[in-house]
Parts: sequence; C-alpha cells; structure tokens
Amino acid sequence: SRYEYVRSFERENILLPQSHIVIRVDGRGFHKFSDHYDFEKPNDEKALQVINEAAKQMMVTMPDIIMAYGDSDEYSFLLRKDCDLFERREFKLITTFASAFSAYYQHFWTKWIPGKPLDLERLPMFDARAVVYPNAENVMDYFRWRQVDCHINNLYNTTFWSLVLKGGMTTNEAENRLIGTLSADKNEILFKDFGINYNNIHDMYKKGTIYIREYTDFPLSKYLEDPTEAHLKRLMKRVKKSTIEQYHCDIIKDSFWTQRPYLLL
Amino acid sequence: SRYEYVRSFERENILLPQSHIVIRVDGRGFHKFSDHYDFEKPNDEKALQVINEAAKQMMVTMPDIIMAYGDSDEYSFLLRKDCDLFERREFKLITTFASAFSAYYQHFWTKWIPGKPLDLERLPMFDARAVVYPNAENVMDYFRWRQVDCHINNLYNTTFWSLVLKGGMTTNEAENRLIGTLSADKNEILFKDFGINYNNIHDMYKKGTIYIREYTDFPLSKYLEDPTEAHLKRLMKRVKKSTIEQYHCDIIKDSFWTQRPYLLL
Amino acid sequence: SRYEYVRSFERENILLPQSHIVIRVDGRGFHKFSDHYDFEKPNDEKALQVINEAAKQMMVTMPDIIMAYGDSDEYSFLLRKDCDLFERREFKLITTFASAFSAYYQHFWTKWIPGKPLDLERLPMFDARAVVYPNAENVMDYFRWRQVDCHINNLYNTTFWSLVLKGGMTTNEAENRLIGTLSADKNEILFKDFGINYNNIHDMYKKGTIYIREYTDFPLSKYLEDPTEAHLKRLMKRVKKSTIEQYHCDIIKDSFWTQRPYLLL
Amino acid sequence: SRYEYVRSFERENILLPQSHIVIRVDGRGFHKFSDHYDFEKPNDEKALQVINEAAKQMMVTMPDIIMAYGDSDEYSFLLRKDCDLFERREFKLITTFASAFSAYYQHFWTKWIPGKPLDLERLPMFDARAVVYPNAENVMDYFRWRQVDCHINNLYNTTFWSLVLKGGMTTNEAENRLIGTLSADKNEILFKDFGINYNNIHDMYKKGTIYIREYTDFPLSKYLEDPTEAHLKRLMKRVKKSTIEQYHCDIIKDSFWTQRPYLLL
Ligand SMILES: Nc1nc2c(ncn2[C@H]2C[C@H](O)[C@@H](COP(=O)(O)OP(=O)(O)OP(=O)(O)O)O2)c(=O)[nH]1
Ligand SMILES: Nc1nc2c(ncn2[C@H]2C[C@H](O)[C@@H](COP(=O)(O)OP(=O)(O)OP(=O)(O)O)O2)c(=O)[nH]1
Ligand SMILES: Nc1nc2c(ncn2[C@H]2C[C@H](O)[C@@H](COP(=O)(O)OP(=O)(O)OP(=O)(O)O)O2)c(=O)[nH]1
Ligand SMILES: Nc1nc2c(ncn2[C@H]2C[C@H](O)[C@@H](COP(=O)(O)OP(=O)(O)OP(=O)(O)O)O2)c(=O)[nH]1
Ligand SMILES: O=P(O)(O)OP(=O)(O)OP(=O)(O)O
Ligand SMILES: O=P(O)(O)OP(=O)(O)OP(=O)(O)O
Ligand SMILES: O=P(O)(O)OP(=O)(O)OP(=O)(O)O
Ligand SMILES: O=P(O)(O)OP(=O)(O)OP(=O)(O)O
Ligand SMILES: [Mg+2]
Ligand SMILES: [Mg+2]
Ligand SMILES: [Mg+2]
Ligand SMILES: [Mg+2]
Ligand SMILES: [Mg+2]
Ligand SMILES: [Mg+2]
Ligand SMILES: [Mg+2]
Ligand SMILES: [Mg+2]
Ligand SMILES: [Mg+2]
Ligand SMILES: [Mg+2]
Ligand SMILES: [Mg+2]
Ligand SMILES: [Mg+2]
Repeated sequence: SRYEYVRSFERENILLPQSHIVIRVDGRGFHKFSDHYDFEKPNDEKALQVINEAAKQMMVTMPDIIMAYGDSDEYSFLLRKDCDLFERREFKLITTFASAFSAYYQHFWTKWIPGKPLDLERLPMFDARAVVYPNAENVMDYFRWRQVDCHINNLYNTTFWSLVLKGGMTTNEAENRLIGTLSADKNEILFKDFGINYNNIHDMYKKGTIYIREYTDFPLSKYLEDPTEAHLKRLMKRVKKSTIEQYHCDIIKDSFWTQRPYLLL
Repeated sequence: SRYEYVRSFERENILLPQSHIVIRVDGRGFHKFSDHYDFEKPNDEKALQVINEAAKQMMVTMPDIIMAYGDSDEYSFLLRKDCDLFERREFKLITTFASAFSAYYQHFWTKWIPGKPLDLERLPMFDARAVVYPNAENVMDYFRWRQVDCHINNLYNTTFWSLVLKGGMTTNEAENRLIGTLSADKNEILFKDFGINYNNIHDMYKKGTIYIREYTDFPLSKYLEDPTEAHLKRLMKRVKKSTIEQYHCDIIKDSFWTQRPYLLL
Repeated sequence: SRYEYVRSFERENILLPQSHIVIRVDGRGFHKFSDHYDFEKPNDEKALQVINEAAKQMMVTMPDIIMAYGDSDEYSFLLRKDCDLFERREFKLITTFASAFSAYYQHFWTKWIPGKPLDLERLPMFDARAVVYPNAENVMDYFRWRQVDCHINNLYNTTFWSLVLKGGMTTNEAENRLIGTLSADKNEILFKDFGINYNNIHDMYKKGTIYIREYTDFPLSKYLEDPTEAHLKRLMKRVKKSTIEQYHCDIIKDSFWTQRPYLLL
Repeated sequence: SRYEYVRSFERENILLPQSHIVIRVDGRGFHKFSDHYDFEKPNDEKALQVINEAAKQMMVTMPDIIMAYGDSDEYSFLLRKDCDLFERREFKLITTFASAFSAYYQHFWTKWIPGKPLDLERLPMFDARAVVYPNAENVMDYFRWRQVDCHINNLYNTTFWSLVLKGGMTTNEAENRLIGTLSADKNEILFKDFGINYNNIHDMYKKGTIYIREYTDFPLSKYLEDPTEAHLKRLMKRVKKSTIEQYHCDIIKDSFWTQRPYLLL
C-alpha cells in the first residue's frame, strides 16, 4: 500500500559475527514480586527451582545456548560464537529471550507453586539484554563477575536476614550493623551469633546454578595434545552425545573451563 | 570485583527524544500455534479476545501508551511523544513489552480458554520492535499501513477458507483459485459462491481492534479555534477524565485522528 | 575471493528519514593551532574569513545544505529534512563533511594567508558529527544554542584579552579577575577600564556567521495566508531563484525564522 | 542556556573493546579525480607516492596504528586491539581519519606535484569507515581480501590499458575483449600481444603498499617457545626499538604474520 514507506523507519542491529553473545534476563521489580508472593528469606528454594527450570527449558528449546548461569532473579545465557539464531538480529534475540523466559517462568510457577496463584497485577516479567564479547577470556570473566556478585549478595542477605529473623533486629538496625563489614566479619556474625557455618550453606545459594551442554564423550586428553581452536573444531565434529547438566560449582577457577574447552568454541 | 570491566562491553540505544515511538509485538510462529490449538478459520473469536485483553492490560499498566492497534497475532502500541519510560532505553522498552505481553496472553488464555491448556512445548511468545517516527503524519500512516494490511489479509483468508471449508477445495486448489484475483473478485466469490456479503462480516475481523486512551472531556471545538501544538498542550493540562475505549472503526480516514488530536501530541 | 566474508562485519547507521540533520564540524586542537599560527586575540579576522569561505564552499558544492552557522573553529550545517545524500548513511555523511571541510580550509588558508605556510606537523583538521532533530522547534533551538554559546565565549574572550593585552595582567590574573562575573560586569570592565563599548564590536565576532540559501522570490505573504507545511511545499515548487547569503544577525529571535519558513521545510 | 537540551539528541557509538579496529579511507570520486589530473594509466607512480606518504604520516602521528595497507585510492589502517584513541568513539575516529588523510594528501600533492596545482572544484577528499574484528584470523583475512582485490584490479587494468594504449582498441573494444577472461588469459594477452611479463611489473602495483610498525628487536624465537598472548604481551614490554617500514610483499601467506606476531596483539 502507499503507506508501506513507514517500514523504512525500522532499524536493525546485527551483533558482531564470530564473537560470543551473552544474553542476560533479569526479573522486573522482583523486590516487590518476592514480597508479594512471600518468598522465603534470604532464599526461596521453590522460586529458585522455578527460575532454574525455566532456564533449563530455554536450553532444551534453543540448541545455540551452550551454557547458562543464574541466581536471584537473573539468568545469563551463552550462545555459541558461530550462532546464527535470527541472523544475530539483536531485537529478535533479546525480545524472544524475554518473552520465552517469562512464558516458561509463569508456566512452571503455576505447575509447581499452585498454592500461590499468580495475580494479573503481579505477573512475573523479565528484561533482557545482549552483550558481545570478542574472546574467551572476556566470557569467562563475565561469568566470574556474576558468580562473585552472587556470593557477595548471598553472604550479605544471609547475614542480614539472620540479624532480622533470628536476632530480632529491625531491618534498619541490621543494615546499620552491616555497614563497613567485610566478608570475614559477616562470616563471624553468622557463626558466633547464630551458629551458622556459611560453608555449610547449600551451594545453590552460595554459587548459583550452572547449566551446561555437556559433551560426555569429548576426548579432553586428545585435545590437550594440541590445544588450538582448529583442533577443537575437528574434535567436536566427531562428538555426538550431549546432555544438559546442572551444577552449583565454582566457575571462577580455571579448572571448570579447562575441562570443557568446547564451551568457549 | 576485578571482573567488573566486562560491564563496559554493554551497549545502549536511546530512542530519539520528542519523537513518536511505536512498539509492535508479533506472535512467534503463530501459524503453528493456531494449528496446534485448533483456532477457528479464518478468525478465532476467543483467541482474538485473549490477545485484545492482553493489549488492553498493557494500557492499564503503562500510562505512556496512548493507543493500540491489533489484528491476527500482532499489536502496535503508540507511546506519547514525550514519553520517558526507561529513559527511552530501547532494549528495556522492547524486552519489557515482549515479556509483559507474553505474560498477559498466557494469563488470559488460561483463564478464558481453560478447555485448551497450554503445552510447555508450545507456549505463546512474542517478539517486539520499536520504531521511531518524527511527526504525526508518519504515525497516522503507520497505523493506516497496519489496517490496510489487516483488510487485505482478512479478505484473502475469508475467501480462502470459504473455498476450502465450504467449497470443498483442497488448500492447494484454493490457493491457485485466488492467484491474480483482485479485491472485487474475492468479494464476488464470497457473494456468488457462498452467499457471504463481506460488508456484513464483523468489523473486528475486517478492521482490527483499536484501543485508545480517550479524554472524554476534551474541548475539541475550543482546540479547533487555534489548532497548534502549544494550544493543545495547554488544553490537555486541564483535561482530567480518561477511559480506555475499544473500537473496530476506520483509522485510515482523517476523521478518526482529527477528532482526537491528543493522540498525536 | 574466499576472504570476502570480512565485509559482513561492516555496520551501517541510516539517519532517521524525514527529520532534520545537523552536521557540526569542529577544529581539532585549535587552541594549539591558533597559538602556532599566531592568531590575533580574541578574534583573528583572516582566520575567520578562511573558515567562513570553507563553509560557503560546502554550500556551493552540496545543494542539500540549506543553512550554516559558525564561529570560532566550528561550523554547523543544516540539511533539508528530505535530504537523501548518501542515502542518509551516517558514516558517509560525517566523514565526507570532515574531509571536505578540511580540504577547503587548507586550500583557502594557503591562498589567503600565504605569509603563514602550513606545517606538516600542524595541518588544520576537523572532526564532524551528525545530530538528528525531529521537528523545527528543535532545529531553531539548536542554532540558538550555538549563537548563545558564541556570545558567551566572545564576551569572555574579549574581556579576558583586554585585561591581558591592554591591562597588563598575566593570564592567571585575568582568569581570577573574571571568576564569578556576570555579563553586565564584563561589559562594565570593557567600558570603564578600556573604553570599549561591547555593542560596537563587529557583529561577526558577537553573533557568528550565518549562510543561508535564500529564496529571493519566495512569496512570504502568500504563505502566511495558510502557514502549513503542505502549502509551503507547493509554494517552494514554483520558487526558482536562490542565492547563498551571508549574515551576522540574531538567529535567536523568531523573526529570522518566520521570514524564511523554507529553512525548516 | 535554556537551549542546551538539544545536546541530548547526540548519539554515540563506542567500538567494542579488546577487538581489532580497521579504518579504511577511500578517495571520493577518484575515477574523475584521476582523469582530471591526468593520472598515468593504469598506475600513476607519483600519485601513489602521494597517497603512500599520506598514509605513512598517519602512522607517524598516531602511535595506535600498527599497520597500514593501501592501493589505488584507498588505505586501511589497523589499530592495536587495546587502542583507546578517542575512547573508541566511532565518529571521532572516522572523521579524524578522513580529515587527517585529506589534509596530508593535499599537503604532499602540493609539495610533490607542483606542476598540477589542485583546483578548488576538485580537491582530494576521502570517506572513512571503521570495522571491528573480534580475532586475529579475521584481521589477516581482511588484509588478504584487500590484497587479492588489488591483484585482481591491477591485472585487469594493466591488460585493459595495454589493449587501449598499445593495442589501439577503443575502451569499449577492450572491455568486450576481457569479458569472461581468467587470470591466465590476461597474463597471456599481456605476454603474447605486448611482450609484458606480468611477474616483472613493479610489486607496488601488483601487491600494493604495506607499512608496519616494526619492532626490530623482537625476540621471535623466544616467543615461539610459548606462543600465547600472555607471553607475547610480556615480551613486548621489554621491546623498545620500532621503525615504520614500507613493503610491497605478499600478506596472504601466513609467513608475513607469523614473523610479526605483535601486529595482531
Ligand atoms: N526473599 C527473596 N527475595 C529474592 C529472592 N530472589 C530474588 N529476590 C529479590 C531480592 C532483590 O530485591 C530482587 C532482585 O534484585 P534486582 O536488583 O533484580 O531488583 P528488582 O528486580 O527489584 O528491580 P529491577 O526491575 O531488576 O531493576 O529480588 C529470594 O529467593 N528470596
Ligand atoms: N486460524 C487462525 N489463524 C490465525 C488467527 N490469527 C492469526 N493466525 C495465524 C495466521 C498466520 O499464519 C499467523 C500470523 O502470521 P505471521 O506472519 O505473524 O506468521 P507466524 O506468527 O507464523 O511467524 P513469525 O514468527 O511471526 O515470523 O497466525 C486466527 O484467528 N485464526
Ligand atoms: N586567538 C584566537 N583563538 C581562536 C580563534 N578561533 C578559535 N580559537 C581558539 C580558541 C579555542 O581555544 C579554540 C576552540 O576551542 P575548542 O573547544 O574547539 O578546543 P580545541 O579546538 O582546542 O580542542 P578540540 O580538539 O576541539 O577538543 O580555538 C581566534 O579567532 N583567535
Ligand atoms: N589512471 C589511474 N586511475 C587511478 C589510479 N588510482 C586510482 N585510480 C582510479 C581508478 C578508479 O576509477 C578509481 C578508484 O575506484 P573507486 O572504486 O574508489 O571509485 P571512485 O573513487 O571513483 O568512487 P567512490 O567515490 O570511491 O565511490 O580511482 C591510478 O594510479 N591511475
Ligand atoms: O538492575 P541492576 O540494578 O542490577 O543494574 P543493571 O541491571 O545493570 O541496571 P539496568 O537494569 O538499569 O540496566
Ligand atoms: O514477520 P513478517 O513476515 O510479518 O515480517 P516482519 O515481521 O517484518 O519480518 P521480521 O519479523 O523478520 O522482522
Ligand atoms: O569539544 P567541546 O569541549 O566543545 O565539547 P564537545 O565537542 O561536545 O566534546 P567532544 O568533542 O568530546 O564530543
Ligand atoms: O566504493 P566501492 O564500490 O568500492 O564499494 P564500497 O566502498 O563498499 O561501497 P560504499 O563506499 O558505498 O560503502
Ligand atoms: Mg537491571
Ligand atoms: Mg530484577
Ligand atoms: Mg536481579
Ligand atoms: Mg515478523
Ligand atoms: Mg507471528
Ligand atoms: Mg503476524
Ligand atoms: Mg569537541
Ligand atoms: Mg576545536
Ligand atoms: Mg570549537
Ligand atoms: Mg566506497
Ligand atoms: Mg574511491
Ligand atoms: Mg577505491
């Protein structure tokens, strides 16, 4: 029609080829959301199961996702470097991730937490953004950044809510108590005041949740004989079996990555 | 942490200030979706109610939306020219629209079409894009473009499915029958072969659905005495009452727009 | 060749159609440049002639430029709203402006200031940026912004260099003397201490230089009978004669613009 | 001033950190330019010296340029991966390159080809674009792409102008003669018809011109003991001496790159 010229105002951003794409989704206003649905403090196991299951379902549906990491109300997804999903059109990628993640979250919530039906006025929603990283080092650092963040927040929240829920402080008092404290101080508060050994807390809370597409028959030792990208590509062509595995392990140390070089291919 | 440098790889696009923003959402793979859940052909009234209600809910929640237009599996939302939602950050806007729309759609579907529970493998999802228009003429043409598109598709689909469902043709035969036909030809097929007067078909199917934030006490005649933007702004400051109204009317002719100058403010 | 895939990494930004484009060039390191070539302080008439002539030549070569405004080491060019130069590809526009402006500046300098041959180590260079404005009001405000800036800088510089060159202050002393002073104070210093009536200073220094593509046979009174864009477009079709005119006038007040509505077409 | 809000319409693109930036400049309308100033066909040695000297001067002035490659009316510059020139702001980078290159070209032309003074109506101008490459392989392929292009064009041009200038063909006849010919065919025409052995033609014409920032005391053999980026970085910290060297050599084969790993650091 004579109105079609309006299409020419659309703009497109194609993400740089042959570089790693990370897409992070984050719950919108989950401070209020978690209050409204009475999340347990500091960590609500069921809510975490819902978000984890949503993330896993993303990996089931989208083979281009090689790894996911999440904690609190957020999840980060790593796409293969040579991924061509939606021809790397940014708006398609991020809006599809936001939409799909919201859809799965609502679905699993309804299924697993039937006792708390979702209100129209407070449905779970997520924003999404894509970040491009040129090399493997950046990607590892990205995930390290998220896990360090998880650790810092969790130690703070665990101590804070112990002071409030077990120590009888007001939230104001707890906040003031924690100003200026270091990690060691918080560990000590937990241990001395509440008998909690932070080390014994569930790894899911301390380290977050990792999903990886694990190539169970990857010949790591063979790869190490010639640890180049070309060799890795050749080896991966012969690899067939993969499963989606869940971990709550350290991803800051190199070992996690060196054992699975295909994550950064 | 020492990994925080990875944030510096994030990029942001701020949509041009003082220009109109249109955000369009479109169902992902609704060809298959409508098949899977046995949508009526060519139009499924209940499914349209679900998508309409989702669109209306968007307007209830987001005061910056002044108008919405939708048909089939898509909806377009017009934001006020001076809208500052998310500081006009594009990724926030489009991913929030995609997420919210998917959430509302799933919610209303579950409520209103309980006989067809949604499958995990086929949840409703939507992409979303933002387009910026510098002036009112472009915006009107945008909505005209969508309504013309609705009309063309609906006339085609109505004729096509009449040939198949009532005329006993295969889908291939119907497709071939319609190759090269003009609007007049399709109207004639409908009337002569199936006794259908296209004019009598429900306007929702022919013209789509419009929601507007209607300012019921807007003094139109006063505005017309001095139809400038400055005057309009002054008048709108005194206007208070607004309701969200649904229409299935023509938005191609000027009258729709001249009666509601505030839509393009 | 098999290497051609590298082209797919190129990115393009198309400037929003039907909106005003302003391209501003600014001399690179002209603080040092003006020192090196002993510019007169605060204003070097010859250097200004060179930059003005370069700007005028831009308008001679590029019919899409409807207006230019400049002072100090910068020039802003307004392109017609419907300009399709380089299909509105941003990188082409800005690098061509930067390149052409530098070329003309060097050319005119060499011709008009032969006494100061340009050194390879200090050739005149300019950066360039494009800014998009959706409506006429923004464009007028843009040029007002630049002219206000010119006025503020020139009053400051005139007073500063009077204190130094005529008042015998060190640059440090002059700087301190001017801290916290308002326009009125500077006017008074100029008048009382140095007998300079700022009003009598050359308008080129106080107001900058304006070039416009003037349509000498534009029927303004006819336009005012129906001051709409559609009417303006119709009138402009019949207008033929245009000349490039130079002014040093006020562009802050409305009158400059209302007399030449075609500038903002 | 109250007009400063117009600044908020400026947009900025920051090029992805830690990835390779290539900036390519290309002469504007050099088809006509070379005609106007009577360039020798197919290659004008003096004109090439001018463009080469302009490119070299770019490297003298900007230490972030590690390598340059050029032929015909174009030059490509490789910036160090960790370059922070203009904080990687794209518009600053490309407009400065366009401006500087034009300035140097005009300067050297005037100096070295005084017999052909430049006309105001036909000054040399250059566009510029930046392309980002995530890894070393892409960068090498980029330069290979340009050199292959140079080779193809030069073989074509050499044959074409031999047919015209020595063979007495019209340009139309020469064009038709070459349609569908392969490299081997062109080599044969040159040899059989004109006694020209293409291999003996000046390498500058066949392979273009390369400038590199050569680290004359780089311990290559030490590097090869542990060819990792970390090791390379450590070695480069101790390297001091560098010179800008000119070559007309093959950059398609690996050897050029493996001998100078620091180019891709
Ligand atoms: N009690 C409780 N709260 C949680 C849990 N997981 C997440 N939250 C809450 C704590 C934080 O206030 C919030 C996540 O922080 P964000 O920085 O994402 O803020 P929020 O989502 O409120 O705002 P946003 O829309 O992301 O800007 O979610 C949980 O398991 N238990
Ligand atoms: N039977 C039936 N089909 C409908 C109805 N509304 C929408 N659809 C179907 C018809 C179209 O195949 C599809 C919408 O077309 P699109 O161009 O959006 O394609 P689709 O969503 O399949 O792909 P996309 O992911 O948007 O590229 O939805 C309805 O009321 N009844
Ligand atoms: N003495 C003198 N100086 C002038 C004249 N016109 C411009 N300038 C100098 C004064 C300023 O230091 C400089 C322009 O200021 P800018 O903000 O553009 O700074 P500059 O070009 O040094 O740095 P930039 O590369 O633009 O960031 O040029 C003149 O007529 N006479
Ligand atoms: N005779 C002659 N011509 C040359 C020489 N070097 C470059 N040229 C001409 C041949 C080509 O027509 C032209 C370069 O081709 P381009 O594709 O860059 O086209 P041109 O610059 O005309 O257009 P553009 O503004 O880049 O789109 O310059 C030379 O040494 N001798
Ligand atoms: O949401 P925050 O506070 O964790 O920080 P952010 O996500 O980087 O901020 P934004 O969502 O506004 O980009
Ligand atoms: O999806 P279509 O076919 O209606 O057309 P489009 O939405 O413009 O295409 P895309 O979704 O790929 O941008
Ligand atoms: O150059 P300035 O200081 O006038 O200010 P600017 O031009 O807006 O800054 P930049 O050139 O860095 O964009
Ligand atoms: O200029 P060409 O024809 O070599 O090709 P290009 O430079 O890629 O085209 P453009 O300058 O229009 O981007
Ligand atoms: Mg956030
Ligand atoms: Mg959140
Ligand atoms: Mg969060
Ligand atoms: Mg689509
Ligand atoms: Mg669809
Ligand atoms: Mg659709
Ligand atoms: Mg500047
Ligand atoms: Mg400057
Ligand atoms: Mg300046
Ligand atoms: Mg080109
Ligand atoms: Mg060229
Ligand atoms: Mg060229």
